[in-house]
Amino acid sequence: MGIIVQKFGGTSVADPQKIHNVANAVIKEKKNGNDVIVVVSAMGHTTDYLIKLAKEVTQNPDSREMDMLLSTGEQVSIALLAMAIQQHGYKAISMNGQQVGIITENIHSKARIVDIKTDKLNKYLKEENIIVVAGFQGVTPDGEITTLGRGGSDTSAVAIAAALKADRCDIYTDVEGVYATDPRIVPNIKKTDVISYEEMLELARVGANVLHPRSVETAKQFNVPLRVRSSFNLDNLGTLIIGVENMEIYKPVAGVAADSSQVRILLSGLPDQPGTAAKVFGALAKNHISVDMIIQSLALNGTNSIAFTVDADDLNNTVNILNQVKNEINTNEILIDKNIAKVSIVGAGMVDRPGIAADMFRALAENNINIKMISTSEIKISCLVEKENANSAIKALCKEFGLESTETAVVKGDLPNL
Amino acid sequence: MGIIVQKFGGTSVADPQKIHNVANAVIKEKKNGNDVIVVVSAMGHTTDYLIKLAKEVTQNPDSREMDMLLSTGEQVSIALLAMAIQQHGYKAISMNGQQVGIITENIHSKARIVDIKTDKLNKYLKEENIIVVAGFQGVTPDGEITTLGRGGSDTSAVAIAAALKADRCDIYTDVEGVYATDPRIVPNIKKTDVISYEEMLELARVGANVLHPRSVETAKQFNVPLRVRSSFNLDNLGTLIIGVENMEIYKPVAGVAADSSQVRILLSGLPDQPGTAAKVFGALAKNHISVDMIIQSLALNGTNSIAFTVDADDLNNTVNILNQVKNEINTNEILIDKNIAKVSIVGAGMVDRPGIAADMFRALAENNINIKMISTSEIKISCLVEKENANSAIKALCKEFGLESTETAVVKGDLPNL
Repeated sequence: MGIIVQKFGGTSVADPQKIHNVANAVIKEKKNGNDVIVVVSAMGHTTDYLIKLAKEVTQNPDSREMDMLLSTGEQVSIALLAMAIQQHGYKAISMNGQQVGIITENIHSKARIVDIKTDKLNKYLKEENIIVVAGFQGVTPDGEITTLGRGGSDTSAVAIAAALKADRCDIYTDVEGVYATDPRIVPNIKKTDVISYEEMLELARVGANVLHPRSVETAKQFNVPLRVRSSFNLDNLGTLIIGVENMEIYKPVAGVAADSSQVRILLSGLPDQPGTAAKVFGALAKNHISVDMIIQSLALNGTNSIAFTVDADDLNNTVNILNQVKNEINTNEILIDKNIAKVSIVGAGMVDRPGIAADMFRALAENNINIKMISTSEIKISCLVEKENANSAIKALCKEFGLESTETAVVKGDLPNL
Repeated sequence: MGIIVQKFGGTSVADPQKIHNVANAVIKEKKNGNDVIVVVSAMGHTTDYLIKLAKEVTQNPDSREMDMLLSTGEQVSIALLAMAIQQHGYKAISMNGQQVGIITENIHSKARIVDIKTDKLNKYLKEENIIVVAGFQGVTPDGEITTLGRGGSDTSAVAIAAALKADRCDIYTDVEGVYATDPRIVPNIKKTDVISYEEMLELARVGANVLHPRSVETAKQFNVPLRVRSSFNLDNLGTLIIGVENMEIYKPVAGVAADSSQVRILLSGLPDQPGTAAKVFGALAKNHISVDMIIQSLALNGTNSIAFTVDADDLNNTVNILNQVKNEINTNEILIDKNIAKVSIVGAGMVDRPGIAADMFRALAENNINIKMISTSEIKISCLVEKENANSAIKALCKEFGLESTETAVVKGDLPNL
């Protein structure tokens, strides 16, 4: 008995039959004696359809109006799912972001949640309702409709779980759980039974598309146990994502992932004086552009160069901003490299085992894969390689670190009621 | 210079091209120096599509969830129309019913508006925005989404015009204005230039589908000048609907209309004692069933019979309720007649001209049309006839009362700035 938050994506609610399947999964959890809140995305290709419609009206739709438009997608899903649950004889009530009180910043198309009101949720749960909440959307304190951007529905679910101090947040998806790498690239990879937030975060950040990092970060921050599980196989418990402090055994390398969505930008010939990096990254931050890898190096002639990567979608904006600060920072050229992929190994156990980085570089070298840029953190080592080498790098690294026959991690102590 | 509220129906915003046409009509009014609020319905067949989707999920969708579902239709329209207006270089902002504060009763699928907040509307108007408001929807004081039922978007527009003390409310539609009867039945009928609320109300009530009576009632109550005009011909001013006190000349019969959507119910063999009618109509009112014509008559044997008409959609509910009170009122039978149409003549001048009723009955008799039931009011006479006689009755009455060559009514005094 506890509070379970479930989240189903657009594919899971793509048509009335699938909506009934979701209703069954929801009711199964309710029958276990739990209070259930279910968060859903827009049906199937609804969001794409709405975006297409907007583009037919104007090539440059206003982001406030896009949020007004797109938020209708989830509202359709919640109404239909509530109806389906009621049809099976259970009490259900749908709530959009405004009705719940999913309060966000006043930024459109990628707002962050700042608060979730729980009074109505608790009231409806007390009345034995299954609550169906629209994911991906929120509302500003002024009543403006916002959307949360990529990974928004997962984040909605985790944030609601955190606000209600839920026992678990189950993210239903079309895969069986989390894998050490993409099974389409390494078919004999094993499903991971338990992984830490930190590892999952790094895997998500570098391109394991199962969960968006925002949702994992929120789960980590509020210590919400997450399960990634299959909506097609309700008996499979998927992968549990918990705090590293609850795990006894972890492998040095828990996963390998690649991210081909970035571009590398190189600013060269910069004068070696303080404040240059601050100017560049300050201007980018002010425009909400996330920078990933950053390397600064001093050349023999006394000038600096700064290389960094951004999401390819942000390239045009980035170049515009760099052109604005170009004179201020005295760069003599801005070079763009689109032919990159970031390949990373991730593992909470890395810090205890020396030589992991050397093993990684050697494995890549043995496969004739050239490294363009390296960055490391406590639980991650990333190498920039040429795009066409990404898959062979993943295969080489999975083999190098024995991920093709991963053993199940062991979980210690009192886990929440799973 | 003033405040103009415009309303466009679903056909007018059925696709991106049509949405741009609406944007042009809106901007035309803005260019005249007016503050403009535009109320729109859901695009084309969106509402039908959503209803179909709900029916695929469950045969008996909950009305709260239906409102949650259907209200998305208008929200899509307002976002797209705001984008289109912006694309033409004008400031625009969309608002759903919740955001405006269109406060309704806590009844789903046919809520009535109880209040409209004007603070945000006035704020956005002051900032030179064209405001695009979702019609058909509102919100209860508790934040529950409601819809207004039939004629809802027209009612939204008129109610907003009333709340803002607008100079005029223009209802754009696919006809050129109001006709004395349906032009599909009497092709040489003339468009009416000016008509009173009262006449329009009676015409609407008896089946002239141009405007729903709720919207005309609201306009009358708050003295909002209404224009019914064509969205395809912006130069045609359509029909102005104003208070009868502002009209100098009106014809005895302003219009003829028929309504085939009702059924007649006959309760016979009722004991002649007080309270029977109160019981019957009290029970129906309690269940929100509107009764139209009512006739009670005493038979020779001392028993009463009551005949009345209700909307065909309400027939099943009505019969259920009658069965519940059957023993209490001692009726010996409930007869249902579905083969009826109500044909009415309407005119504010009727009261000054005796013999109009006799002329109506004679005209019907000369055309071999049998009258099943008659009811009269100050500005209307209605006859129930067999359904198949409805059209010939309309033709006969238009001829009888000279409506095929209607002269334009003359308007006296100071009209609002039109």
